[in-house]
Amino acid sequence: MRSELSWADRSVPAVLRQVGERQPLVHCLTNIVVAQFTANVLLAVGASPAMVENAVESGPFATVAAAVLVNLGTLSAEREVAMHDAASAAHEHGRPWVFDPVAVGALTHRTTFAGELLALHPAVVRANASEVMSLAGSGASGRGVDSLARSEEAIDAAIELARARGCVVAVSGAVDYVTDGKDVVEVAGGSRLLTRITGTGCALGALVAAFVAVERDVLLATAAASAVFKTAGEAAARDEPGPGTFAVGLLDQLGAMADAASELA
Amino acid sequence: MRSELSWADRSVPAVLRQVGERQPLVHCLTNIVVAQFTANVLLAVGASPAMVENAVESGPFATVAAAVLVNLGTLSAEREVAMHDAASAAHEHGRPWVFDPVAVGALTHRTTFAGELLALHPAVVRANASEVMSLAGSGASGRGVDSLARSEEAIDAAIELARARGCVVAVSGAVDYVTDGKDVVEVAGGSRLLTRITGTGCALGALVAAFVAVERDVLLATAAASAVFKTAGEAAARDEPGPGTFAVGLLDQLGAMADAASELA
Amino acid sequence: MRSELSWADRSVPAVLRQVGERQPLVHCLTNIVVAQFTANVLLAVGASPAMVENAVESGPFATVAAAVLVNLGTLSAEREVAMHDAASAAHEHGRPWVFDPVAVGALTHRTTFAGELLALHPAVVRANASEVMSLAGSGASGRGVDSLARSEEAIDAAIELARARGCVVAVSGAVDYVTDGKDVVEVAGGSRLLTRITGTGCALGALVAAFVAVERDVLLATAAASAVFKTAGEAAARDEPGPGTFAVGLLDQLGAMADAASELA
Repeated sequence: MRSELSWADRSVPAVLRQVGERQPLVHCLTNIVVAQFTANVLLAVGASPAMVENAVESGPFATVAAAVLVNLGTLSAEREVAMHDAASAAHEHGRPWVFDPVAVGALTHRTTFAGELLALHPAVVRANASEVMSLAGSGASGRGVDSLARSEEAIDAAIELARARGCVVAVSGAVDYVTDGKDVVEVAGGSRLLTRITGTGCALGALVAAFVAVERDVLLATAAASAVFKTAGEAAARDEPGPGTFAVGLLDQLGAMADAASELA
Repeated sequence: MRSELSWADRSVPAVLRQVGERQPLVHCLTNIVVAQFTANVLLAVGASPAMVENAVESGPFATVAAAVLVNLGTLSAEREVAMHDAASAAHEHGRPWVFDPVAVGALTHRTTFAGELLALHPAVVRANASEVMSLAGSGASGRGVDSLARSEEAIDAAIELARARGCVVAVSGAVDYVTDGKDVVEVAGGSRLLTRITGTGCALGALVAAFVAVERDVLLATAAASAVFKTAGEAAARDEPGPGTFAVGLLDQLGAMADAASELA
Repeated sequence: MRSELSWADRSVPAVLRQVGERQPLVHCLTNIVVAQFTANVLLAVGASPAMVENAVESGPFATVAAAVLVNLGTLSAEREVAMHDAASAAHEHGRPWVFDPVAVGALTHRTTFAGELLALHPAVVRANASEVMSLAGSGASGRGVDSLARSEEAIDAAIELARARGCVVAVSGAVDYVTDGKDVVEVAGGSRLLTRITGTGCALGALVAAFVAVERDVLLATAAASAVFKTAGEAAARDEPGPGTFAVGLLDQLGAMADAASELA
């Protein structure tokens, strides 16, 4: 079934309100480029980020977190061990983990590593079209961290990947598509400016982790995170700001939306 | 003795002016989330930050820095060696070092490691209430990087820790408490928004390092750094900005306060 | 020959327009402090940044990038291997790479390492005066990451270094000097505020990489990057903003200049 979701649907602010109320501890294994922005996005909506990424602590910490994010951006030998341990521990202890396979398909090493992580049962894979097609084995590959395909081109691959892995797959793009292998939820909106600052896709992955921590319907939680992010992006882009102002405004909008959601009955 | 300190006390802008005049080189071993914000906070007040965090250079670099910051946020095998060497070298060469034991008590490994570092004579421990209580052996522990206790609950633990280690302990919270084990200085003010962006506690630790680099009275220097940071936070929060705007305004306020301090007689 | 270059010269926006049109993939091996700002500067002008800094992938990735940046800011054992491999691979595959030898001369280890990298044929060395003089063997050394000398004092060292290594050398300062060992291009402008936020020099190094990726005249490309950055800094400083606002405005100005350049015939 095909449906659409937006901020106007009551379920979206409802999940956001849950995040603010329960302040889920989100264990982020992410990259050096986006770590600060990711933490600020999570804090803006009331979640509690913690970046623990060493080989000794990541496994144990995943078992006490409400959700875990694994983002392959800037791999290192130690981070790879930490990621593997965190994903394993999260799965074993029933904590949902979100997989953001940055640049998979573009480099052999991370493609192999991504395959290993994919076997550890992520609750959600959030990626761009090229990355989703690569994981699904459709053979496409990106250029660096950017997608060479549009999100709609990856819908079939996303459905296939979701079915094969029993997870939700979110394809980010001008329109986001979120699927559990059966239903596809379309999330429109956003702004071209979201591609002109770094870390928006990565931060969305973290937001998804916060949302699946508080909402058991993983398809809804993931699509709601997309809807919140796209709405914030659209609002922040309203006056056609430059990229610096836009990044600041995006955090402000997320904060304002979280405040608004907290006042819902 | 119990006292209060604020920006209105002449001694606070006086220390800030010293920072601007002497531009102390602050060697920061900190985490990937807050490194940029920390550097910008130090630059805003006229200090000179340098992040050297590898195992080979950290020891030698600590001996030429004016002060050293060790923040446990994102540990790694190599950073741990670097932190140990920098703290040792700083102590041996008479350079004050500031210890920010992020999330100590919440994870076994860093709790052990923090104990080792604590034996290397930090001039100041800056931490939240849960972390101070954990270091003092009061048995409390935080949740991820956030405190589960209010700062006033940790005053006794802070005094005990300061006495046992011969250092100054600063507990951050809605009110900051700074003690050398005998006197307790209370610093009020700030804003709830300081907890809604990442890195404010970590950046305060760096500011403390810059202040102890230029002022030999460690209790005063530490409390003055708290007062400067709280005043900047309060001013930046004045128009109830969103978190993005607040982070920008915080740096602006610190810059303006440094400029104002530099014009003092 | 001595000449000047500024945004008013048609060749400067012309190179900037090329960046926007060709969106060069810039492989950045940089430091944890400036990674986000560097990525945002590249995105603001339409380039495509990718930070791959592990020992396994950096070599292969350098061969598919349009240009490579190696910045020594926060070295680690693994990053050093990655940097060496990326620089080697870039040179072997005819990709220009830009060398930013942060704090060379101030620490023995990185001075030795910088010497090894210098032998791998960078297209451009971008550094402050102290760093250029250290690389040229003039014996000067900085204090931490800051220069103790003014840029004009390093012109002779820059010419010598450029001749000895067959590369372009850019000395950053109140005035930037760019030389291929024969001609010297002077780029004035900018703002004192560029030294009051972190990462401006590092981000300029990345901008140089994007520019040499699209313009074969390396001297022109490097000086044009300086001119774009100085013009953006000057514009962002116009209303004497605080450092937080300045950092945001700098990205906005770069975005606006890229937009303006894209509309040139």
